Amino acid sequence: MDLDTLKERVFRANLELVNHQLVIFTWGNVSGIDRERGLVVIKPSGVPYDRMSASQMVVLDLEGHVLQGSLNPSSDTPTHLEIYKAFPEVGGIVHTHSTYATAWAQAECPIPVSGTTHADYFYGAIPCTRKMTREEVSGEYERQTGRLIVETFRDRNPMHTSAVLVANHGPFTWGSTPEEAVHNSVVLEQVAKMAYVSRSLNPEMPMNDLLTEKHFNRKHGADAYYGQKHPIPDPECR
Amino acid sequence: MDLDTLKERVFRANLELVNHQLVIFTWGNVSGIDRERGLVVIKPSGVPYDRMSASQMVVLDLEGHVLQGSLNPSSDTPTHLEIYKAFPEVGGIVHTHSTYATAWAQAECPIPVSGTTHADYFYGAIPCTRKMTREEVSGEYERQTGRLIVETFRDRNPMHTSAVLVANHGPFTWGSTPEEAVHNSVVLEQVAKMAYVSRSLNPEMPMNDLLTEKHFNRKHGADAYYGQKHPIPDPECR
Amino acid sequence: MDLDTLKERVFRANLELVNHQLVIFTWGNVSGIDRERGLVVIKPSGVPYDRMSASQMVVLDLEGHVLQGSLNPSSDTPTHLEIYKAFPEVGGIVHTHSTYATAWAQAECPIPVSGTTHADYFYGAIPCTRKMTREEVSGEYERQTGRLIVETFRDRNPMHTSAVLVANHGPFTWGSTPEEAVHNSVVLEQVAKMAYVSRSLNPEMPMNDLLTEKHFNRKHGADAYYGQKHPIPDPECR
Amino acid sequence: MDLDTLKERVFRANLELVNHQLVIFTWGNVSGIDRERGLVVIKPSGVPYDRMSASQMVVLDLEGHVLQGSLNPSSDTPTHLEIYKAFPEVGGIVHTHSTYATAWAQAECPIPVSGTTHADYFYGAIPCTRKMTREEVSGEYERQTGRLIVETFRDRNPMHTSAVLVANHGPFTWGSTPEEAVHNSVVLEQVAKMAYVSRSLNPEMPMNDLLTEKHFNRKHGADAYYGQKHPIPDPECR
Repeated sequence: MDLDTLKERVFRANLELVNHQLVIFTWGNVSGIDRERGLVVIKPSGVPYDRMSASQMVVLDLEGHVLQGSLNPSSDTPTHLEIYKAFPEVGGIVHTHSTYATAWAQAECPIPVSGTTHADYFYGAIPCTRKMTREEVSGEYERQTGRLIVETFRDRNPMHTSAVLVANHGPFTWGSTPEEAVHNSVVLEQVAKMAYVSRSLNPEMPMNDLLTEKHFNRKHGADAYYGQKHPIPDPECR
Repeated sequence: MDLDTLKERVFRANLELVNHQLVIFTWGNVSGIDRERGLVVIKPSGVPYDRMSASQMVVLDLEGHVLQGSLNPSSDTPTHLEIYKAFPEVGGIVHTHSTYATAWAQAECPIPVSGTTHADYFYGAIPCTRKMTREEVSGEYERQTGRLIVETFRDRNPMHTSAVLVANHGPFTWGSTPEEAVHNSVVLEQVAKMAYVSRSLNPEMPMNDLLTEKHFNRKHGADAYYGQKHPIPDPECR
Repeated sequence: MDLDTLKERVFRANLELVNHQLVIFTWGNVSGIDRERGLVVIKPSGVPYDRMSASQMVVLDLEGHVLQGSLNPSSDTPTHLEIYKAFPEVGGIVHTHSTYATAWAQAECPIPVSGTTHADYFYGAIPCTRKMTREEVSGEYERQTGRLIVETFRDRNPMHTSAVLVANHGPFTWGSTPEEAVHNSVVLEQVAKMAYVSRSLNPEMPMNDLLTEKHFNRKHGADAYYGQKHPIPDPECR
Repeated sequence: MDLDTLKERVFRANLELVNHQLVIFTWGNVSGIDRERGLVVIKPSGVPYDRMSASQMVVLDLEGHVLQGSLNPSSDTPTHLEIYKAFPEVGGIVHTHSTYATAWAQAECPIPVSGTTHADYFYGAIPCTRKMTREEVSGEYERQTGRLIVETFRDRNPMHTSAVLVANHGPFTWGSTPEEAVHNSVVLEQVAKMAYVSRSLNPEMPMNDLLTEKHFNRKHGADAYYGQKHPIPDPECR
């Protein structure tokens, strides 16, 4: 895939966030990576979606050096880079402040598996990071955000649960492509809304764990992961 | 009715799910049946709604043998077939993951009759199935889902309460035609949302049972069923 | 105003219910009255909004005799007629099953004055009727619904609080014209939604009664009514 | 900037309230100020947005004398004037009855900082005014509303928290331009909705105060204010 194609895809994936009503103004960003050349393409910072063009996408290496583009990259770029460096199968990353996923992140509550809609896409609860420390916030904040996400997945397979809530902040999702990462952001928001309503109706959230396994397997295929049975994260709020 | 007409109707009914904002991506499916010939027409699996055509609809017999169509039928096909086999008056079936109906299903709560809007369409609470067992989940899962629905209607008239919540999963609705089944899905989602808000305002849900009878009768006509007075299902969550 | 003009206005007012997302399918109806001739114009029963024409509007006298129109009038017509007979200043009436207003009606909770938005339009709480009796439901049900509304306004000025919740059913609104009645339905739904959210945030609903007076007065002008100070209805749920 | 340009900008800013679904009918108003000449431009009272033109915008001096325009200015004009007189950096003001911000105002609850979305725009909680007294309501009510807002900011920097909830009424926002004031109204509504959902999920609202500082600083730049550390308002409801 040549770089112009990736820029076009990342550009279109950013517009999809608007079409799916996940972002307003300039809130949100999508990136994609060319793994062979180690090049990351990301939305420029603060450019409104309706005036953005594919040629404005910023190209960087994994250390954050800008190689193409006259505009500053998204301020969340260091977070994206940490995720790309730690999770080698990730091909695209999305950050939004979508309403319900952000609300769970603000509440510091992981989103428990509330039904098969969740289980079709995400294995186990969507984890929520711990609070950031004074050192993390005052230092390279956006980079530390990425490291915190990686830390949160120490015992999880990031390709089976391709989403995270950054505590007090909002969601990041990823996938093997930028388009899949956007798809996962749309699903996450819907899952977050349905879990909110379900929990209001029945705080016990009585998921059938058999279905958690079945639905994830049915959609993503059996593999060794399921033999290992990573523990499902505790769905309690902090 | 010839088969092409049924395929066209099932195709259009599927698109109506999108127009009524009951589904995103490929979440949801509509089928219809030609009772004389025993032929079921259903949406193909995983095809996005905006690229779907009537000719792609899959035709099967009631045992699940594909008779027309080069694409795989919806993965929920065995559930539809069990419903058609058990409920002879059903002419169309819909499955969605619509937000509020799914939230009630996830909470394992039947939707109680909260007002005349509900009573105009559905007699008594929308039942929620029991949890599936390990045997059901690990065996012919989608077929068992259909059997579980049929079991849930053992003491109910499926043409008077043409909707069910599959526990931890989501709603199925049906009707005498595919269009009526879609109509019932739209009504179910609206009824599910209003019941959610009502219950937040007043957990007692103080329905007037006289109106439950009156409104259902007013719209659907008096018949022997009402003399028998099937018990209204318990609206408690499990 | 000639009758064709009234039919056109009632027709357009019905379409406005759809534009303001207060009704789906055929749920809802608007009527208007020519007080000089005692003629009521109302939506025909069960005709979808997108296939309706002004010429299909049904014309009746106040006793319910159809004078023009080949279609049946709305099944709620007897309710409208009782309101017109009891409240001589009413020129138009609307019935919807709009989500939040219906949810309050289902909960049998009057909508308390939660802020100046409410007070700008409605004086005091939006009352909720008592439950209907067996005699009322089994007799001329729709006519009894109208009488119950009139009973609920025994001690209220219907032109100062131009809306009611019929318990377990949904809202009716009215005004000096069909257009004003529709306007009040839109406001009622918005007020119902905001009161729902406010009550979730603070169950005490701490309205400033001084503002209730001030805002209603500011918009509707001082008159003797305010000297009399009708008691503000109790905002407790039944 | 000439006056026609300001009238055009204020006109367009008013339409943006409709585009962002913050107002229905004539609920809401935007004004702008030419500080050099002391001229305020504001929406006329009660004119529907779809029939409004730039030439109808009303021009007044800071004492409320109408200098241009044949229509009455918004009834909230005295509130706007008090804000312009007290906060010299304000260039535009917006008032809406947007759903969630109004619901918090009705509940008399300040909107606590629930996450970085809030912190990116507003420093500390969005304050809610105290209840108005009988003297304030019965006197120059709209002017007193403005004075109450100013009183509420006695110990706050209005350019760092450019929004307020008037108790039992609704929100006002402002900014250095009319466009920025509208932007802040859109953000406020989104922040109000997310805080509502978060609080339902976790009443403790566990914000990380370090992020409150970091995000506001990141977007608005370091300045002496942060050294002084104005106290963050108490996020308890009254």
